Amino acid sequence: MNAPDKFTSLLTLTREPFPASHKCVIPGSRPDLFVPVRDVQLTNGETVSLYDTSGPYTDPKVEIDVRRGLPDVRGAWIAERGDTESYEGRVHHALDDGAKNEDRDAQRLAELRAGASALQRTPRRAKSGGNVTQMHYARRGIVTPEMEYVALRENGKREWMAEYLANEERAKRVAGNPMGASIPRIITPEFVRDEVARGRAIIPANINHPEVEPMAIGRNFKVKINANIGNSAVTSSIEEEVEKLVWAIRWGADNVMDLSTGKNIHTTRDWIVRNSPVPIGTVPIYQALEKVGGVAEDLTWEIYRDTLIEQAEQGVDYFTIHAGLRLPFIHLTANRMTGIVSRGGSIMAKWCIAHHKESFLYTHFEDICDIMKAYDVSFSLGDGLRPGSGADANDEAQFAELRTLGELTQIAWKHDVQTMIEGPGHVPMHMIQSNMDEQLRHCHEAPFYTLGPLTIDIAPGYDHIASAIGAAMIGWAGTAMLCYVTPKEHLGLPDRDDVKQGIIAYKIAAHAADVAKGHPGARSRDDALSKARFEFRWQDQFNLGLDPDTAREFHDETLPKDSSKVAHFCSMCGPKFCSMKITQEVREYAAKKGVAEDQAMSEGMEEKSKEFMAGGGEMYIPIKAVS
Amino acid sequence: MNAPDKFTSLLTLTREPFPASHKCVIPGSRPDLFVPVRDVQLTNGETVSLYDTSGPYTDPKVEIDVRRGLPDVRGAWIAERGDTESYEGRVHHALDDGAKNEDRDAQRLAELRAGASALQRTPRRAKSGGNVTQMHYARRGIVTPEMEYVALRENGKREWMAEYLANEERAKRVAGNPMGASIPRIITPEFVRDEVARGRAIIPANINHPEVEPMAIGRNFKVKINANIGNSAVTSSIEEEVEKLVWAIRWGADNVMDLSTGKNIHTTRDWIVRNSPVPIGTVPIYQALEKVGGVAEDLTWEIYRDTLIEQAEQGVDYFTIHAGLRLPFIHLTANRMTGIVSRGGSIMAKWCIAHHKESFLYTHFEDICDIMKAYDVSFSLGDGLRPGSGADANDEAQFAELRTLGELTQIAWKHDVQTMIEGPGHVPMHMIQSNMDEQLRHCHEAPFYTLGPLTIDIAPGYDHIASAIGAAMIGWAGTAMLCYVTPKEHLGLPDRDDVKQGIIAYKIAAHAADVAKGHPGARSRDDALSKARFEFRWQDQFNLGLDPDTAREFHDETLPKDSSKVAHFCSMCGPKFCSMKITQEVREYAAKKGVAEDQAMSEGMEEKSKEFMAGGGEMYIPIKAVS
Repeated sequence: MNAPDKFTSLLTLTREPFPASHKCVIPGSRPDLFVPVRDVQLTNGETVSLYDTSGPYTDPKVEIDVRRGLPDVRGAWIAERGDTESYEGRVHHALDDGAKNEDRDAQRLAELRAGASALQRTPRRAKSGGNVTQMHYARRGIVTPEMEYVALRENGKREWMAEYLANEERAKRVAGNPMGASIPRIITPEFVRDEVARGRAIIPANINHPEVEPMAIGRNFKVKINANIGNSAVTSSIEEEVEKLVWAIRWGADNVMDLSTGKNIHTTRDWIVRNSPVPIGTVPIYQALEKVGGVAEDLTWEIYRDTLIEQAEQGVDYFTIHAGLRLPFIHLTANRMTGIVSRGGSIMAKWCIAHHKESFLYTHFEDICDIMKAYDVSFSLGDGLRPGSGADANDEAQFAELRTLGELTQIAWKHDVQTMIEGPGHVPMHMIQSNMDEQLRHCHEAPFYTLGPLTIDIAPGYDHIASAIGAAMIGWAGTAMLCYVTPKEHLGLPDRDDVKQGIIAYKIAAHAADVAKGHPGARSRDDALSKARFEFRWQDQFNLGLDPDTAREFHDETLPKDSSKVAHFCSMCGPKFCSMKITQEVREYAAKKGVAEDQAMSEGMEEKSKEFMAGGGEMYIPIKAVS
Repeated sequence: MNAPDKFTSLLTLTREPFPASHKCVIPGSRPDLFVPVRDVQLTNGETVSLYDTSGPYTDPKVEIDVRRGLPDVRGAWIAERGDTESYEGRVHHALDDGAKNEDRDAQRLAELRAGASALQRTPRRAKSGGNVTQMHYARRGIVTPEMEYVALRENGKREWMAEYLANEERAKRVAGNPMGASIPRIITPEFVRDEVARGRAIIPANINHPEVEPMAIGRNFKVKINANIGNSAVTSSIEEEVEKLVWAIRWGADNVMDLSTGKNIHTTRDWIVRNSPVPIGTVPIYQALEKVGGVAEDLTWEIYRDTLIEQAEQGVDYFTIHAGLRLPFIHLTANRMTGIVSRGGSIMAKWCIAHHKESFLYTHFEDICDIMKAYDVSFSLGDGLRPGSGADANDEAQFAELRTLGELTQIAWKHDVQTMIEGPGHVPMHMIQSNMDEQLRHCHEAPFYTLGPLTIDIAPGYDHIASAIGAAMIGWAGTAMLCYVTPKEHLGLPDRDDVKQGIIAYKIAAHAADVAKGHPGARSRDDALSKARFEFRWQDQFNLGLDPDTAREFHDETLPKDSSKVAHFCSMCGPKFCSMKITQEVREYAAKKGVAEDQAMSEGMEEKSKEFMAGGGEMYIPIKAVS
């Protein structure tokens, strides 16, 4: 039964808590509802409390067994609603994992599954004809525990922000420009319900993913980021993928998409979903294509539908579905610089042209809605015609599809299915705002979920930066979730470090957007870090950053000694030159002398200046006289 | 005479040309005027010609001897103007290099100087009472060779952009939003003269830096970037600094500032200026402070003045001078989160308060102008009160100083001294535009030269990214030069790789700004790369990027074989899934079938859709009927 598992040794999950941090909870209205946060203990006795995406992995008190999966956060909430039933579920085929039954791969597959047999959950679905989406509850006025969870999570602990709010001049000066968002000072569960009801936010939470710690995607909440993981035909393994998930959420991925395309994708997904505290998204057409041996023309609605059910039963929280890529739009890409660059989009385009038929994703859209609402899978309506270069940005192909996504959104909403809209891609800075404008106009404020966008095309190896610029701007403009881009974009599969680099770049973009929008509390973390910086509390400066390890390591490179971590200078300027040190001296001096004198002098000089100007003097101020 | 130089072995300059690239020149109107460009040979026979900051170092035909310095590009131009004279110059003191004469350091110093004795140039200055600034010539209607050089350089070779310009729909769609800039389609020498005359651009070109390849800083030219190098009391050596220069301009630094603060700074500067094809800037107060043993209160106008002359004779092209930090503004920083963070600013603040006197930089501003115009050193009016955190952005301290910089600009212009204005620092995205607006309003379109700005404060270790976002935005808004930030910002001295990371991040920001502004030709490079990407010309994709080495290396990680460099897929998607490959198939198919049919179908469906809508049908389109 408990035979040695040959994969255990490979699964060295990253579990170390962040420095000076421990997991705390914000209690909700019921004993089984509490929202984890990360509290950072500062050296001056203060505590800063941060939004935490890392799940139980950073809590040393929690025992983790990836072969059993995470504890069940939402099970009781789902059960007590009484509108779902468990059922036997779809029969698994070897083909789900890309293997034919007679394959030698089938043996390997059986081993993989046996190694995690406890992960197999009995699936649930809505009772016949029912609708179990958060949107459906919201529209009936029901505040679910998931909504309350989101409200508590978005607020965090506000106590430590008092100092920032107390400085009225500053708070007013840096207040933010919400660009049309309406973010309340305190997020209430009722506010969350209302946002979900009107479709302006989604809470991706499949009833078969009870392990998820609920979160919201919407322009009136914190800007979120998504990280992509996945194996591929060329490289990587299942073991790597689970650790990639843990690694991604450690650094702040709010959502993770599993974009696996090779062998064992069903089993990989089991491992990921069962071990994920964040919503998991997929692009089901990838697996469907595997099932037909990679021949796009052989895809059928039946195979696709079967794949949706397979993945819905596993607990995938949102599906990217390229239903807006219609046959009549395909010719619009003929003169493009880079044609169709979405994988899903190009598969569907090929299918449409091969059969000369409208896309089955479009024609079966309401059938898809029926599946989505039975499990509460959210739509992420894919932009199969997104531009693959700045040259193709905002062209008719892209916008024709976007308008169609708006039409589909209204169909999805008719079914109370939660929906977000995917966006580009590659867009020069001056064309970013119009993407947001078009999306808002046509998609009725359904959350926008953009890939980048990359602002230029000449930075292969650095596209996380080229795109973080666009991501920050579109996040400020109203995009609710930013899909990360790693340094390997366009070049190869990201490894562990690339995933981290991509996530940090996108945490920067998302936070820059929150600060610019004036999300309450967003800039309190900046203030706490700036204060630590000014007071030479080096450890606090590191620990409040997005990546304490790297900050500490960089500081160690030139000043490795512990004593430097309290030194009132750094290697950039050396001991004599530290401007912050000098400033503190200046401040003490100014306090002693008083400022009244300086002000008087200022006024006196301005007076003099006016006299000289009035007199037509070339020198507006008596500069020689003063020296 | 040619005794083995003990530093030679350490000076392994990076001289390798970029892959598939060779140095070409654009000839001007006289035989000694030709502008270097880098031509990249593509595998499809095309050539792409790029702006090149790397000087002779990337030209294998040029013999480089750092002990002799670079060839003299401008010497004849300066001489034939007949308005300068050579003179003996200031006598060097050991103190210029931070050593007292009796020091054991003095011995070391003598060795250093002897090792590069050929670098000592006899200084030139304007003939008595003369003015030799580019602005002075420009205002008298004279087009200097420097101006013609700049015009040719900004245009580059336009032939290869024909394809981009030929596609009218595309050219119109992606045209750019200049945000108030007026960039002509072709830059003429006369246009450059006019821009310099009205102060909207500067050509930093000290008459004692004839090695410089002239370039312009102004909002109607390409956005430029500056990299900082320099030793410090804690780390680094002269040998490293010269290679840092070569390394910085290799990756695209248009200007370099030498911010050395430790020992040997005079000699370090000799080495850097004599070996630099790009303008060199300094902050003279740093050296002046060394001369008074690091005690700010002991600074005097005489010591400062002497330092200006010392550096002007060496050939420094622009001086950062914090003359706008006035005594009456200092108290405005008292309630700041992070006080004064500019080194120069805090030194002057300390001096002002210690003496309770107005800053000698301010009171002696016209005396400084007299020095500047005798050598054509440009002002970079420093922002000593720039914010050190988002919390302090755009406060009265910052803007009071900015207004003063505007006043000083007009005094400088009265003397025909070229002037640019330094800007922040730390500014959240929503406050960036008003920085630019205030600068334009008060500083009369004098070029803006900003440090970042950083959009958030929580990214130590990644501040090159946090600030590249702000840099791209403010560059688009009209900033002429972006001072880079490295990943080590706030943490330590940047090493070689940090310098490169900072530069690439800022090349991305500057290029994103050029593309957004619609600089003619900026996006042709993007188009060439995108086309290569779409056609699977991997080598061309790498070679057209900002960092071919890294792009190639990343690709090699998963697909190291040469055959992969022509493969029609990459490791991201594997052979079956490449969307670009599928798109090409789709395109061929579409060409065969013709698009007329698709269009007809499209129109037919729209008709149907309208019928259904008119009939009040819930489904706006007969989705079941089509499948």
